[in-house]
Amino acid sequence: MDAAACAVELIHCYSLVHDDLPAMDDDDLRRGRPTCHKQFDEATAILAGDSLQVLAFHLLASHPGPPSDATIRVRIIDILAVASGTAGMAGGQALDLAAEGGSLDVADLERLHTLKTGALIRASVLMAAHCSPGLGADQLEALSIFGDRVGLAFQVQDDILDVEGDVQVIGKPPGSDQARGMPTYPAITGMEAARARVRQLHDEASRQLAMHGWQDSPLADLSHWLLARNR
Amino acid sequence: MDAAACAVELIHCYSLVHDDLPAMDDDDLRRGRPTCHKQFDEATAILAGDSLQVLAFHLLASHPGPPSDATIRVRIIDILAVASGTAGMAGGQALDLAAEGGSLDVADLERLHTLKTGALIRASVLMAAHCSPGLGADQLEALSIFGDRVGLAFQVQDDILDVEGDVQVIGKPPGSDQARGMPTYPAITGMEAARARVRQLHDEASRQLAMHGWQDSPLADLSHWLLARNR
Repeated sequence: MDAAACAVELIHCYSLVHDDLPAMDDDDLRRGRPTCHKQFDEATAILAGDSLQVLAFHLLASHPGPPSDATIRVRIIDILAVASGTAGMAGGQALDLAAEGGSLDVADLERLHTLKTGALIRASVLMAAHCSPGLGADQLEALSIFGDRVGLAFQVQDDILDVEGDVQVIGKPPGSDQARGMPTYPAITGMEAARARVRQLHDEASRQLAMHGWQDSPLADLSHWLLARNR
Repeated sequence: MDAAACAVELIHCYSLVHDDLPAMDDDDLRRGRPTCHKQFDEATAILAGDSLQVLAFHLLASHPGPPSDATIRVRIIDILAVASGTAGMAGGQALDLAAEGGSLDVADLERLHTLKTGALIRASVLMAAHCSPGLGADQLEALSIFGDRVGLAFQVQDDILDVEGDVQVIGKPPGSDQARGMPTYPAITGMEAARARVRQLHDEASRQLAMHGWQDSPLADLSHWLLARNR
């Protein structure tokens, strides 16, 4: 489980390094510090991202375990690979770049957010679930839905913070996404509808946990933290 | 085995797409056709490379097999991951970029070539070896050395073809690597010593095969093709 968490973080870091590149989001700051290509150079940032991505799979394949069952290990490697590729994060980033300056409806934006951000959060939940012995198909399905809803809620909340957040807390000037024509939830639906959507997604996620008696588990804390977060 | 070969090819393709980027080798042509960022744009080329890399691991983890043994599958995933990352291809590309315009000795250049090109060729041999039941540790070691020598020989021959090759055959103008200050074997040792090194590496590789009675196997053909190749 620790290795799985590290692997997800490596994939997350790789995506931040590549997304910040001049050809992508062209960001100078990340969490208030210079981005990788600013601190070093573009070639280094491209190679660092490539290396972080593949390091995730090296880690999952080589760490001593748990899981000791190689079949489960192959399964969580595949979950992470799918969440990172065209059916997940990279596909979402491609939609994001294609959407800049254009107009999206809510369904398009939810699809974009679900792939770009949600897929990795859902994968995190599913990787942990597959490492937990004895979960049935209905429990795995509930956790998949939980991860999906929490993942989307995370990104809608991120869009809200882009409008309302404090530069000292979120590490970038408020309104920076919207200013460069990136699609955001409040811009399409208005702020109240965006807030309502986060609450709705939180409720749907919580319901999945309650169905299996997990309403007091750490997963419930995660969903609650998400609703209250300001960074 | 077919899936393993596809996975290696996916990693190879990803590395070509990223190496061609303006921040890296800045190539307009690849095999006589526009490079990915020329045909589309830089962001697409970065994302396409990222996606090709992770698709290799999805394929290895999800294809129906062989190998049916998940332990072997995890092992070949790890071999490919290590060969792609900082201890392999990406590390070699970083050395290559750092070396441009500077001076390297032969040992530095062999280390660079061994990582940048050799690691993936060695990994291809080792992945196939691990899929073949019943090979002992000494046989795996011989195949590892074979892959290492053939991988280095491939890149030294590539450097020779950069000087002597035909644009119609190699898909880029001869001398293009050397012209932009990239380190090449003939530039450091002279052409005759470079040719002698290829023959020596070929002999070392062949000796490993002969030790185990594999001198008439397809691996021997690979090594012979390498010595004679003009593209």
